[in-house]
Formats: sequence, structure tokens, C-alpha cells
Amino acid sequence: MSDIWLTSLITDTPQQGYELAITLSRRGVKYTQPDMDVLKKLRPEYANSADALTAASHVIAVNFQTVAAANNYWRG
Amino acid sequence: MSDIWLTSLITDTPQQGYELAITLSRRGVKYTQPDMDVLKKLRPEYANSADALTAASHVIAVNFQTVAAANNYWRG
Amino acid sequence: MSDIWLTSLITDTPQQGYELAITLSRRGVKYTQPDMDVLKKLRPEYANSADALTAASHVIAVNFQTVAAANNYWRG
Amino acid sequence: MSDIWLTSLITDTPQQGYELAITLSRRGVKYTQPDMDVLKKLRPEYANSADALTAASHVIAVNFQTVAAANNYWRG
Amino acid sequence: MSDIWLTSLITDTPQQGYELAITLSRRGVKYTQPDMDVLKKLRPEYANSADALTAASHVIAVNFQTVAAANNYWRG
Amino acid sequence: MSDIWLTSLITDTPQQGYELAITLSRRGVKYTQPDMDVLKKLRPEYANSADALTAASHVIAVNFQTVAAANNYWRG
Repeated sequence: MSDIWLTSLITDTPQQGYELAITLSRRGVKYTQPDMDVLKKLRPEYANSADALTAASHVIAVNFQTVAAANNYWRG
Repeated sequence: MSDIWLTSLITDTPQQGYELAITLSRRGVKYTQPDMDVLKKLRPEYANSADALTAASHVIAVNFQTVAAANNYWRG
Repeated sequence: MSDIWLTSLITDTPQQGYELAITLSRRGVKYTQPDMDVLKKLRPEYANSADALTAASHVIAVNFQTVAAANNYWRG
Repeated sequence: MSDIWLTSLITDTPQQGYELAITLSRRGVKYTQPDMDVLKKLRPEYANSADALTAASHVIAVNFQTVAAANNYWRG
Repeated sequence: MSDIWLTSLITDTPQQGYELAITLSRRGVKYTQPDMDVLKKLRPEYANSADALTAASHVIAVNFQTVAAANNYWRG
Repeated sequence: MSDIWLTSLITDTPQQGYELAITLSRRGVKYTQPDMDVLKKLRPEYANSADALTAASHVIAVNFQTVAAANNYWRG
């Protein structure tokens, strides 16, 4: 990908950090399947599957570990 | 999501930290599938599956790692 | 849940830490499916499946990482 | 379980540490299904499945992270 | 493999670090199945499966943890 | 296993560390199923499955975290 989408792991709040973790998780999908039409077609399949939603939350959790450590857990 | 749901990873006790890990895990699902009606429809499917419950506990465990580290393991 | 079940991650021995990791893993299931009758009904399904037992051991391993770090690996 | 099987995470060598990680992984299974006859019956099922063997190696890898950190990676 | 493909985990930016994590993830596949024709044949199967794309993103997330830690989270 | 296959987690380069992570991942399989004939028979099954290859890369990624930390990320 040629666009710049990630310049820092630092966020102001934990919630922004969590949302960055979501972005990281989605980018992992987009790098593997860049065709947005395919991704849109797949969406109903996984947004209506309990297993797929749990798996998505799992990937977010792993990325959130990284973002939280980067921000020293926003300990202030 | 526009609501504020996560302002700190710090909790008073390990149990509150574990419960925050559950909140983080559920938010990962809700960000991916925000439609509460769909989520309610999926609930019986995964709350009655041993595999799905283990997978849910796995995501909580990953998020609990993050919360526990943030709290320096409540070492006091 | 209103009961208090987790007041500390500190244990005397690694084995007690491992057993606390098992408790954490089971609590993740119980928070998601609090109905004990359902959980009992599911037990034969997963206690007789090699894949389910491996998955259970996986969750325990993740929680044991947390407990072991909290105890500074019982290095003495 | 009333027997004592884990008194320390410290090992002399990385290989002993890896083998301790295997022990930890198997104990996770045994705590969940203590009946040795059931476990023996399940063995051919998973020892002949590529997916199950990869999953077993995954759990060992997670436990090896813990053991390796406990031993400060045997850096000497 | 005899070619040199990984000489450092250090990158200039988080995005380059994320892309290195993708390289690491793909190499794990190539070491296991070095035949590029087989890999090309498998591609449509997993690039059109929501579950497979989530699994790919998961592996990237694990490798990104490593790369991010190596770079001290690009804290500057 | 009575042979000595792991005497150190320290490697000269990140790539050698990655290859050690592959060795660790394969050993996890071999400890569980030591019969090389069975392993050879299973190989086509998983070397031609996108899901199995991703799972293999996942285990390597977990072991690479350990090896990379042991080597202080080859920061020089």
C-alpha cells in the first residue's frame, strides 16, 4: 500500500488506543485482500457469525496489547 | 462509536480488572457488529457451544493480560 | 457477578498459580454463560473432544502467563 | 489435583524449559479431563491430525514463553 | 532457505514495522510450503474467506507485537 | 526425547532467530507425535491447506516472540 495510514502508536486516551487496535486489525485484512468489493461481499458472512465476531475481537485484543504497551498503559 | 466507554485501564482490584477485560472483549464484537438485534440473535448460538465459550474466555484472557500489566498486577 | 472470587494474583507456588490460571479460564466461560445447567450439559461435549481440550489448555496457558508475571515467576 | 507436579519454573537448559512447557500444556488437558482412559481413547484422534498437532505445538509455544521469561532466556 | 531476507527488526516508522510483520507472517507460510505454485493455487481459497482473512490478520498482529517491541514502539 | 536439540536461544541474526522459531514449532509437533512416518503422511494434508499454513505461521510467530526477546531484538 502506498498511502500513509500509521504514523504513531501513541494516542491520547485508552479508547482511542482501542480504536487504533481496530484499525490495525482491519489493515491486516486489507493488506491480504485489497479488493474492497470482495471485502464488502464477505461482510455479511462474518458479521452474522458468533465465531467470526469472537475471532475479530481476539485480533483486536492482540493489537490492543501492542498499543497499550506503546502508551505505557496511559498511566499518566 | 461516539460514546465514551474507556477512560482508564486502572482498577481497584484484580476482579474489577477481569471484568474490564470482559468489557473490552465485548466491545471488540460490538465495534464489528454494532446492530444489537443481530448480536441478540447470535447469543443462543454461542452461549450454548462449548467451543464458542472457550473462545470467549480466550479473548478475555488476552485482554486481562493487558489490564493486569497496566495495573502492575495489583502488587500493592 | 456479585460474588468476590479474585482478590489477588499472588500465589505461594507455581502450581497454585497454574491452578489460579484454571480458575480464571473457567470464570471467562461462566461470565459468558452463567447458567450452570447449560454448562453441565456442555461438559461431555468438550471433555471428550481432543480439540476442545487443547483449546482449554491454550486459555489456561494465556492466563498462566499473566499469573506467572504477577508473581515474578516465583524466582524467590 | 492433590499431587505436587510444579515446584519451579527454573530449568538448567532451554531444552528442559521446552520440555517443562510440554508438561504444562498436558496438565492443562488433564485438569480439564482427569480420566486417563478418556485421554488415551482421544490420543489417536489428535495424534493423527495435522491441525491438532499444530494446535498442540501452539499451546507449548505459549507456555514456553512463560518458562523462557522465568529463566531470563537462559542468557547466562 | 538460503536467501537473506531478514537482517533487522528496526524500521523507521510504525507502518514500515507493520509491513515487516506482514513479511514475517508470509515467510512462516513459505518456509512450510516453499512451492510457489501451490501457494498461488491456495490464494483464492483464503483471500475469499472471512475466517482465513481474520486468521491472517491475527498472525500479523502477533508479529507486529515483536516488531513494535524491537523498535521500542517508535516512541521517538 | 533423549537427543540434545536446543542449547541456546541466542542467534547471530534475526533470520537465524526466525529459523530457530521454526525449529521450536516443529519440535512441538514431534514431541506430540514422534512417529516420522505418521508425520510424513500428514504433510500433504496441511501443506496444501491455506488454513493449516496460516496456523503454522501463527505458531512460528509465537515462538519468534520468545527468540526475539531472548536476543534483545538483535538491537546491536
